[in-house]
Amino acid sequence: MASFNIVVLPGDGIGPEVAAAGVQALKTIGEVFGHSFNFEEKRIGGIAIDTDNNPYPEDTDRACLAADAVLLGAVGGPKWDLGKMRPEQGLLAVRKSLGLFANLRPMDVKASQVHRSPLRAEVVQGADLLIVRELTGGLYFGKQTRTETTATDECVYTVAEVERVARVAFDAARKRRNKVTSVDKANVIETSRLWRETVIRLHKEEYSDVELEHALVDSMAMHLVTRPTTFDVIVTENMFGDILSDLASVLPGSIGLLGSASLGATGKGLYEPIHGSAPDIAGKDLANPVGTLKSVAMMLRFSLNLTQEADALDAAIDAVVESGFVTRDIGGTASGSAVSKAISDKIRETA
Amino acid sequence: MASFNIVVLPGDGIGPEVAAAGVQALKTIGEVFGHSFNFEEKRIGGIAIDTDNNPYPEDTDRACLAADAVLLGAVGGPKWDLGKMRPEQGLLAVRKSLGLFANLRPMDVKASQVHRSPLRAEVVQGADLLIVRELTGGLYFGKQTRTETTATDECVYTVAEVERVARVAFDAARKRRNKVTSVDKANVIETSRLWRETVIRLHKEEYSDVELEHALVDSMAMHLVTRPTTFDVIVTENMFGDILSDLASVLPGSIGLLGSASLGATGKGLYEPIHGSAPDIAGKDLANPVGTLKSVAMMLRFSLNLTQEADALDAAIDAVVESGFVTRDIGGTASGSAVSKAISDKIRETA
Ligand SMILES: CC(C)[C@H](C(=O)O)[C@@H](O)C(=O)O
Ligand SMILES: CC(C)[C@H](C(=O)O)[C@@H](O)C(=O)O
Repeated sequence: MASFNIVVLPGDGIGPEVAAAGVQALKTIGEVFGHSFNFEEKRIGGIAIDTDNNPYPEDTDRACLAADAVLLGAVGGPKWDLGKMRPEQGLLAVRKSLGLFANLRPMDVKASQVHRSPLRAEVVQGADLLIVRELTGGLYFGKQTRTETTATDECVYTVAEVERVARVAFDAARKRRNKVTSVDKANVIETSRLWRETVIRLHKEEYSDVELEHALVDSMAMHLVTRPTTFDVIVTENMFGDILSDLASVLPGSIGLLGSASLGATGKGLYEPIHGSAPDIAGKDLANPVGTLKSVAMMLRFSLNLTQEADALDAAIDAVVESGFVTRDIGGTASGSAVSKAISDKIRETA
Repeated sequence: MASFNIVVLPGDGIGPEVAAAGVQALKTIGEVFGHSFNFEEKRIGGIAIDTDNNPYPEDTDRACLAADAVLLGAVGGPKWDLGKMRPEQGLLAVRKSLGLFANLRPMDVKASQVHRSPLRAEVVQGADLLIVRELTGGLYFGKQTRTETTATDECVYTVAEVERVARVAFDAARKRRNKVTSVDKANVIETSRLWRETVIRLHKEEYSDVELEHALVDSMAMHLVTRPTTFDVIVTENMFGDILSDLASVLPGSIGLLGSASLGATGKGLYEPIHGSAPDIAGKDLANPVGTLKSVAMMLRFSLNLTQEADALDAAIDAVVESGFVTRDIGGTASGSAVSKAISDKIRETA
């Protein structure tokens, strides 16, 4: 019987509700498959600012560094919008501290949800892609300066940073439809030229069996909207990935269904739904738990190496969603906790 | 009788065809309204690399600096893709030399074209927005370094740079629906914090009659797809503007209908369609001249102060497009030159 230490960071707004759904799914998986999950709950984001005056307290950091995987709810809210200290700094800090250099955001369009997409059904149906975003480099962590009249940000990338995230993309493509689209702005910026050269060389040396294409970030923003079905794995640097992954996330018409994984070199990862803290619906049991449960499935797959368990969870999620037992955001009437319970029941039923 | 010196930069691919349409429209406007336009044709882009070994020859620069306005076709093509010198460098050079700090890209969805949009009609119909992109700052013109293992780009903005482009946006909003959405990434980068503070201060001091909102660039990419009708004027820095304006350009379903203006401090401007050089259809009289003609209307309005003439051209374009006499890219069968001629005839007929 394997035993895993999971740190849970509920965070703000609907974070605690969806994190609870994640814990419930892991407990069920534990019972059904005979694993033991130990949960340790820690603070991050706005709530940590309130209690610790630090969006990422040292105590949280220590626990995350020691854990097998981290489950995050959501951070932020209007309460902290005007403060000097911001909840999102907690997110940036945990990424940096755990060395989570690769952010994985799968996006696929469910047949039952295609009518919710802002895109025409014929444009979007069948879309199934994975965005791999570099998460600890670029403008996000470069040197910043500020005077009365001028501000600067530095964007830095090294060959090693590009290689390791490109490997994640190529490896993922081999398990999917074997195609990578690398996105940069190589016609204008130097970090993008280094990016493109490195991806080309790595592809030639180690991944020539994978189809590789390059796109400029401005064109890619257009392509995601005009022909999303033509992509498999998309890999890009931090800021471009921030923009493109959010853009891609609205295509299925239901942001509440999408999860994410942020991975480091050792296989440790942080898992979170892509939606925000939605303070307007917090505490009302309306939040859709599916994005978090999708993230938990990725945790089982990537950090805990429990493939069968991940498949079981994914299948249970899909079955419940396709049955129409869903929350209000995607046209149902079920509460968040009822959906979470239905998915746990489904796991038990089918395992 | 007013006289104007126009430099024409046909460039590459379909550039010469669409530039010729622009010249034809200006000649017609000249005849009908009694102005004289003097045209001087110069090289830029790939063709200038071939003949002058420089994508923006000095001779071209001198002519542009002396002109009242510049009309550009398009630059680039596969022929120059692998060279050290790239056609797009010509574009960056003319922007810098003429100090064209504000790029204006209006986007509206024509009723007759709404079915071509990748978005559902109910999401996109009625969208009518103007993106104002800062064009001579940020990562585009910052210091770049490169070693074997590392590359850097510097992103710099000054208060003065932000102010002048924000003024363009606020002034434009006053003539439209009086709303500005300023886009940045102020939760992460320093230049964006300076951007936001400067826009807030300027708004308070001089434009408090205009409605102002702020959006993060990642959210904005989503909003443009999920609720494009809720925006009027959008203002943002160079790289974000590059991405968002291309994204917005696919929403009407016909990139061939959109023009752009790049303006400097003196009112001088460079006008070009937003489409590229489309080498695959070059020389076949298939290129849609409407994007260029829309750009010419902006030239009349912004650089030459000929409002009535601009209105006449815009009305003629709209009448011909709505009549269905259009090129293949938007579902018609007319040649590019036939559409161009029809629009000139319409100007004569209605003036
Ligand atoms: C909250 C913010 C700092 C963060 C980012 O830009 O990375 C968010 O947008 C995300 O994508 O996780
Ligand atoms: C060709 C390229 C340098 C240019 C830019 O990035 O500014 C283009 O994409 C544009 O938007 O005009």
